[in-house]
Amino acid sequence: MPLTLTTTDPRTGVSTDTGIEPTPDEVVDGIVERAVGAMEVMEGRDRAARAEMLRAIADALESRRDLLIPIAQAETGLTEQRLNGELTRSAFQFRLFADAVEEGSFLEIMIDHSGPTPMGPQPDMRRMLVPIGPVGVFGSSNFPFAFSVPGGDTASALAAGNPVIVKAHSAHPLTSRASFDAIRAGLEEAGAPAEAVGIVYGQAAGSRLVAHPALTAVGFTGSLGAAQHLRAIIEKRERPIPFYGELQSVNPLIVTEAALEARSVEIAQGLGASVTGSAGQLCTKPGIAFVPDGERGDDFAQQLAEAMSGAEPAVLLNGRVLDSFQAAERELEAASGVESLLGTRGPGADSGGFTVAARILRVDAAAVSAEHTAEAFGPLVLVVSYRDEHELVAALEAVPDSLTASIHLEESDIECIAPLIPALGEASGRLVFNGYPTGVRVSWAQHHGGPWPATNSLHTSVGITAIRRFLRPLAWQNAPQALLPAELRDGFSGAPRRIDGVLMLAS
Amino acid sequence: MPLTLTTTDPRTGVSTDTGIEPTPDEVVDGIVERAVGAMEVMEGRDRAARAEMLRAIADALESRRDLLIPIAQAETGLTEQRLNGELTRSAFQFRLFADAVEEGSFLEIMIDHSGPTPMGPQPDMRRMLVPIGPVGVFGSSNFPFAFSVPGGDTASALAAGNPVIVKAHSAHPLTSRASFDAIRAGLEEAGAPAEAVGIVYGQAAGSRLVAHPALTAVGFTGSLGAAQHLRAIIEKRERPIPFYGELQSVNPLIVTEAALEARSVEIAQGLGASVTGSAGQLCTKPGIAFVPDGERGDDFAQQLAEAMSGAEPAVLLNGRVLDSFQAAERELEAASGVESLLGTRGPGADSGGFTVAARILRVDAAAVSAEHTAEAFGPLVLVVSYRDEHELVAALEAVPDSLTASIHLEESDIECIAPLIPALGEASGRLVFNGYPTGVRVSWAQHHGGPWPATNSLHTSVGITAIRRFLRPLAWQNAPQALLPAELRDGFSGAPRRIDGVLMLAS
Repeated sequence: MPLTLTTTDPRTGVSTDTGIEPTPDEVVDGIVERAVGAMEVMEGRDRAARAEMLRAIADALESRRDLLIPIAQAETGLTEQRLNGELTRSAFQFRLFADAVEEGSFLEIMIDHSGPTPMGPQPDMRRMLVPIGPVGVFGSSNFPFAFSVPGGDTASALAAGNPVIVKAHSAHPLTSRASFDAIRAGLEEAGAPAEAVGIVYGQAAGSRLVAHPALTAVGFTGSLGAAQHLRAIIEKRERPIPFYGELQSVNPLIVTEAALEARSVEIAQGLGASVTGSAGQLCTKPGIAFVPDGERGDDFAQQLAEAMSGAEPAVLLNGRVLDSFQAAERELEAASGVESLLGTRGPGADSGGFTVAARILRVDAAAVSAEHTAEAFGPLVLVVSYRDEHELVAALEAVPDSLTASIHLEESDIECIAPLIPALGEASGRLVFNGYPTGVRVSWAQHHGGPWPATNSLHTSVGITAIRRFLRPLAWQNAPQALLPAELRDGFSGAPRRIDGVLMLAS
Repeated sequence: MPLTLTTTDPRTGVSTDTGIEPTPDEVVDGIVERAVGAMEVMEGRDRAARAEMLRAIADALESRRDLLIPIAQAETGLTEQRLNGELTRSAFQFRLFADAVEEGSFLEIMIDHSGPTPMGPQPDMRRMLVPIGPVGVFGSSNFPFAFSVPGGDTASALAAGNPVIVKAHSAHPLTSRASFDAIRAGLEEAGAPAEAVGIVYGQAAGSRLVAHPALTAVGFTGSLGAAQHLRAIIEKRERPIPFYGELQSVNPLIVTEAALEARSVEIAQGLGASVTGSAGQLCTKPGIAFVPDGERGDDFAQQLAEAMSGAEPAVLLNGRVLDSFQAAERELEAASGVESLLGTRGPGADSGGFTVAARILRVDAAAVSAEHTAEAFGPLVLVVSYRDEHELVAALEAVPDSLTASIHLEESDIECIAPLIPALGEASGRLVFNGYPTGVRVSWAQHHGGPWPATNSLHTSVGITAIRRFLRPLAWQNAPQALLPAELRDGFSGAPRRIDGVLMLAS
């Protein structure tokens, strides 16, 4: 008898049997092989059908809201409000990619007609992006919808025309299965091949999936340890495949003296909400806040403590997150010059399950080194008191490159802050002004990546350009019209095309 | 006294001292550090200035044609005509990237205004691509201009706004130095920072370059062994960087029965020229040709032998290329069922230096396996005789994925060939119809990459999209206008922009 997977309610710490068995190797192989077959079917359908499929999945997810939310609550400890918002976001992502599929720019169509050039007469060249093949998706524990089975990796890989095989996260197997059922219902509703999306359970099945010769890419959001495990498997593959992983991010936030003078309470409340939202378990959580020292800075710290002490009890996602949060807390507390302004290590006031207290630690900028700037994944922020811009710049250098960098400033600061912007842009993927990095907007222009160790800095897992991770260029030289894809034929006008170097809009 | 680099004339095999010393470690470090400074200067200049810089480099290269060609001839053994064409191509590449820089699409500007969404009110998001940082370029021996110091990697990395440090190829150090001098003259002419392009000599200097913390990407064209050496260095870096390498490609070419009937002599002559041009030392050389068996096939083989025996003597680039060509020849000759139709192993008729004979080998499709489908870098083609489409499809499966796949067909074949196209597209980066894969057109729509082991299939080293390898996305959230790059400000119209999801042309 194979062991079945368990699930644990983080609010109580009580584990129950899910009845789900780990997926055996041969079943994993079969799922991948059928995905290859599904891809062929998908290739025979047009972009309108693909968009319809994505919208049907969005509808199926939303129509199961009342079923999905309580399952996810019991497996993640996240609030109903947060999970409702996340499911809305997941459905929105599928619909936004449907829009992008219909719009067609993502194909990057280019046509260069034959003709004379400085290198003599040259052939007709036509290029567009085509789907890469079956994609493996490994979601994260902190986003059971938006970065898991029905998440952005799944949506963007499907939008690109690829089949997807998801490895269910061990911390929310029931949510994964229920989400998968919703997706399958959406596929059926749209008349798309059922095997366009598959799911496997258990770590061994995930390893088998990544090793499968037919897999062409892996989208991953999760822990560094799991990422290293999967990368080691990829290294052993005969044919290497891209691994799109998001790793860690400390997300510095800077408050100027003028901003503090103008709206100290407002920033304290906003920052407190950003640090404690989702129990601080967001990759974009601002983990380190640079605040001017002196009386205003002390007042701000007090206001921040008030804001954060009023937050809901912080239930962490699982025992592993709890352990690593407490280890990070311990290391930060022991780092030189650090004092605690709010909270204590150990179980929070509401001590059921994996609950912890929200924490504020503080240190002088002059004392900041690498020991102060590790990510603590949970409701903790380190306030760094800086005396002047010189101290600020020096302390920022100890902060690892991140997904985001935020700055609260006033109109009067702009001239003085402008010289800092290039360095902040080099050290992050997104610059946030007078706002907070959490609550990542999903839109065309969004970007979710940053220089190492945040992610591989060339790609993004949020926003429309996430689709490009799962496409590859293919060129046709002097091809007969009948053998070209419809989008590359003469006279097609259903997507923007660059013709002889000139960008033309669709008509 | 440090040893100096030697250079060898492949036409005679005679080596001479160049007087060039290998670059010491501390000099390499200084070059990279000054490149970082040059990047800051480049960031302060606009796109018009960048385009001017690229055009000035093109002009400087062409104005030194009479100097550069003889140096390259003596170091590569390539013909004057070929080298003249290659220099023209190199200059054209710089000018084409200048056009692309001015056109501005490569910035991928997207702006999403703030406003209500299904997830509530959302902030203003603006995104574009920014330069990644100093890029290391390792050129190839077979393209002393177009894939070396003044090659596509250098042009695309500069066009993206990055400084470039080139490692001079050990087989053409003098050509590298003379090309570098031309580029420096172009930079000076355009008022660009001289340190925007640097050069280092010697393998140790190349290793030091790749290990330097400030390097952000490597563009590589060359041997698998050198690639593995550099990848091992990258693996040891604290911060990983992308390695864009092109490795090997056998480039299958298919001739249908109808095409053979219609234009056997024409195809034989075209294929012969493609196999022997540049002594067969092109990554896109068609190395394996599938031809119907029987009388027509025999005639074709005879015609091909006539075409290739009339080719100029094949002078290989250097002793290493000679050794590996002869090893590949030997292995192919020993593979089961292979017969020789033209040439013999060993020195060619004109036996000075690294000269070899052009070779045609032949095998039945039914006998083809992996031992027949390795790349032989030099003037050799394996003719595979197939009896029917079934044999053709089966034999194609033994061919490793390649940069290109070519097919010679007639109008009457289209219906019957159409089902083969998806598999050929999966196994290559470029499909060539009724033509030859060599003589790669440089244009917007061109693509030079293919599934592993040809390259990492997601990127290209030829064509305008090569620029994207050296750019990364950066997003601005709610940024004050004054802190935005000019291209992201309200009212800018000097490049295409996507605004609230709608693509807008420049005006």
